[in-house]
Amino acid sequence: MARRTRASRSRTATPVLGAPASPYIKRTLPFFDILGEDQLTELEAQVDWMFENIGVAFRDDPEALELWRTSGARIEGDIVRADAQWIRALCAKAPSQFTQLARNPERSVTIGGTNQVFAPVYGSPFVRDLERGRRYGDMAAFEDLVKLTYLHPNLHHGGFVVCEPTDVAVSKRHLDMMFAHMTMSDKPHLGAITEMSRAQDSVDMAEIVFGADVMEQNCVIMGNVNTNSPLLVDRVVTEAARVYSSRGQGLIVVPFILTGAMGPVSTAAAICQAMAEAMMVCAYVQLLRPGAPFVLGNFLSSMSLKSGAPTFGMPEPVVSNYAIGQLARRAGLPLRCGGSLTASKIEDAQAAYESADSMHSTMLAGANFVLHAAGWLEGGLSTGYEKLIMDADRLGSYQKVLDHALDTSEDSLARDAYAEVEPGGHFLGSAHTMRHYQNAFYEPKLSDSENVEKWEEEGATDMRTRACSRWKEMLHQYEAPKMDEATHEELSAYVARRKEVIPDAWY
Amino acid sequence: MARRTRASRSRTATPVLGAPASPYIKRTLPFFDILGEDQLTELEAQVDWMFENIGVAFRDDPEALELWRTSGARIEGDIVRADAQWIRALCAKAPSQFTQLARNPERSVTIGGTNQVFAPVYGSPFVRDLERGRRYGDMAAFEDLVKLTYLHPNLHHGGFVVCEPTDVAVSKRHLDMMFAHMTMSDKPHLGAITEMSRAQDSVDMAEIVFGADVMEQNCVIMGNVNTNSPLLVDRVVTEAARVYSSRGQGLIVVPFILTGAMGPVSTAAAICQAMAEAMMVCAYVQLLRPGAPFVLGNFLSSMSLKSGAPTFGMPEPVVSNYAIGQLARRAGLPLRCGGSLTASKIEDAQAAYESADSMHSTMLAGANFVLHAAGWLEGGLSTGYEKLIMDADRLGSYQKVLDHALDTSEDSLARDAYAEVEPGGHFLGSAHTMRHYQNAFYEPKLSDSENVEKWEEEGATDMRTRACSRWKEMLHQYEAPKMDEATHEELSAYVARRKEVIPDAWY
Repeated sequence: MARRTRASRSRTATPVLGAPASPYIKRTLPFFDILGEDQLTELEAQVDWMFENIGVAFRDDPEALELWRTSGARIEGDIVRADAQWIRALCAKAPSQFTQLARNPERSVTIGGTNQVFAPVYGSPFVRDLERGRRYGDMAAFEDLVKLTYLHPNLHHGGFVVCEPTDVAVSKRHLDMMFAHMTMSDKPHLGAITEMSRAQDSVDMAEIVFGADVMEQNCVIMGNVNTNSPLLVDRVVTEAARVYSSRGQGLIVVPFILTGAMGPVSTAAAICQAMAEAMMVCAYVQLLRPGAPFVLGNFLSSMSLKSGAPTFGMPEPVVSNYAIGQLARRAGLPLRCGGSLTASKIEDAQAAYESADSMHSTMLAGANFVLHAAGWLEGGLSTGYEKLIMDADRLGSYQKVLDHALDTSEDSLARDAYAEVEPGGHFLGSAHTMRHYQNAFYEPKLSDSENVEKWEEEGATDMRTRACSRWKEMLHQYEAPKMDEATHEELSAYVARRKEVIPDAWY
Repeated sequence: MARRTRASRSRTATPVLGAPASPYIKRTLPFFDILGEDQLTELEAQVDWMFENIGVAFRDDPEALELWRTSGARIEGDIVRADAQWIRALCAKAPSQFTQLARNPERSVTIGGTNQVFAPVYGSPFVRDLERGRRYGDMAAFEDLVKLTYLHPNLHHGGFVVCEPTDVAVSKRHLDMMFAHMTMSDKPHLGAITEMSRAQDSVDMAEIVFGADVMEQNCVIMGNVNTNSPLLVDRVVTEAARVYSSRGQGLIVVPFILTGAMGPVSTAAAICQAMAEAMMVCAYVQLLRPGAPFVLGNFLSSMSLKSGAPTFGMPEPVVSNYAIGQLARRAGLPLRCGGSLTASKIEDAQAAYESADSMHSTMLAGANFVLHAAGWLEGGLSTGYEKLIMDADRLGSYQKVLDHALDTSEDSLARDAYAEVEPGGHFLGSAHTMRHYQNAFYEPKLSDSENVEKWEEEGATDMRTRACSRWKEMLHQYEAPKMDEATHEELSAYVARRKEVIPDAWY
């Protein structure tokens, strides 16, 4: 209770650059359904066929296999097969939407249903910015990126590994990352998953912030894990499930399928495989704790035939976003997919075209939790400072599309305006325009719409140059959201204590 | 008959850079309907209210007003109001889809229904490329752009004013533009509209290529005209209708509405106004010649509150694309909207983000004829050589999304592949992959997906640099499609004859 009180005292002041209009998107735009009932039935039959005939291996974790066995699955070696109806019944125990609390209650997010949440890039070993070029990520960069994510009104969630802080031992960096997210931002964020003890540290630190009571009743932290596609779930996943799901915390499970490599070369087959893998883990999670929040993930990439390298923003993953959105809604599970993805090394037109097509489809598909919504470069190997700010600027546009759809109210139809304006005249001064112009248009921060003369006068900048100025200005204005001192100290002491006992390790 | 024979002999060899996979897109992807029945009814009621109560002015063309009057419209000054059911009945006479013949029959396009046709930017006074920067368009640039459009497999239609050839007198440039399109490309294209005599020249030249008989039965040329929003149709439009529509040729009528200026500041009202303006012209066209092909156009732009400048790729026009698509389908009329639009002056990330969001929504909206699908810069003031090639590269991705949607056939589900691959293994060598990999992925020409080391080795180019190399290579490889000498000479003689009698004028 002491902790809960503390948490509720830890509300922040409005951040200097403006709080988000809403802490997440409450979509009013209809979904885009590209599959007919026949196709849905075919795809679901394929998923069921995989549950029953192909199965998913749960490797190097006898405890997981044992739970499957005692619950009634068919085990052969480490391959788990099961009755499809049973798997679907287990998945139905997962909530179709749930709320992840933020330490600032105004920033809590609801994941699932018609809600959509945008979070930054996750997992890049490198960072890039216009002034320093490409370099290994470090703790300084990590903190910059956490601050920028905190400050940006179009990012609802902090994500977690905004870059790898490679100057901190792998065995300890999760502690610094958690501490940064918890103290430098008040948005919700994820925790570590790479080892069971690191997941446990994440959950323990969340308990310091939120208190055990709040945590028992609410999702306050989530882990994001990949399966080892094809059809392999290793102990990183099952252990993360035991730490997060058993405590009622969220788990996002994401098959990463480079079509033709980790799955068949057809998009339909890859989508079914992703559904089968993620739903098997969802069922496992529901065996651990019925009702534990779960997010069905999908990360499907196409391939360059020249080099075998993954490609992004291409038509196959665009279509897969639309299809998986529909399948996830049918399964009643919150979805993570897509992002502002690109294979480009820099923040050029390639990066923007690919990111926009990837993200436009992610947005329309109804992805409930979008990791990599901003900052992704180079197939995920690099986090771009400018890219983060540029992508996030576009996220505001998507938010408006989703939130507002088309207002057809009487006032919006503006019949009164036509009484004031002659044919060939203009509406600039009409009463209707005066009433509405201030909120009529999304105002991007980084798009230059001046005429060419004005633009040249002002330095003929490209978008990345403006983005560079913008993130520097944002960091300059950054102020940490308030946190009560006791919580701050307790977190600090936890990190120090754990660092003392954990040996440095670089794997 | 002589002419028809000539036209059919004028088939070209396969162009050096490859013919389009198909001459236009035959969409299998479902449409994205964002409006419910209630909203559709409200919007249609607003359009009907405008027909009956607000009306549209038909200015400076007594002949047009007289036709309206004798047909039963209510005229007050130059404002035409009419019974909504009657206007809708007239519009219903326009074909819901029609074919525009190309001189190479393999390149004829069908406009309307589930078909989608991409054409380049139209009307820019300036051109820009990486080597020469921004400069006034001239005939040399115009010819370059016609050649590039001809060569690019993802552009189905030549458009018309790919840039303004400002080194030719305004009074004569339509002749040179027509001649370039007709001789340097064999794709379908538009004709001039700026004056009635120029429209007539366009139709006359089309008659030389196709013959009067073919032309009587088919659409072989179209004009693209803007209304003077709000609610004003000037004689450019009605005269173009008399020249094109009266001959059974196509007319595209496009209200250009900068929301808050040429229409109310709400998207819903602006869309209804656009529908009302375009449908009134459609009705007029059907009075001139029932069944004449008509394309309902919509060009809706948002505005910067800072400068009043038009903005592109923003959420309001994105939503308007989706809405107008649905309204046009309900009206049974082919639609032109959208394009790869941007306010950026150069081919940077801003240009690409905005173009992609604009074009992704245009594509999904089902726009049947997309002018400005490639090459647009600077709010349409400038045609970019690199931008043309970059946009067109992305159009191939859209084409795949639309053509293929999601294949859920048995072979696509690849059950056989799972017999070959272990959990955690890979599908790279599986028989299913071997059977399908060559056509599995869209292969962009300008996206670099190499790793950073390889990319640096190869010069660390951005997309615009690669686009620059590409258009130069394309122009280098260009060969004119064959045209029989008699037609070529006749066109040439027509241009020479007309240039003799038309005085130079620069307006």
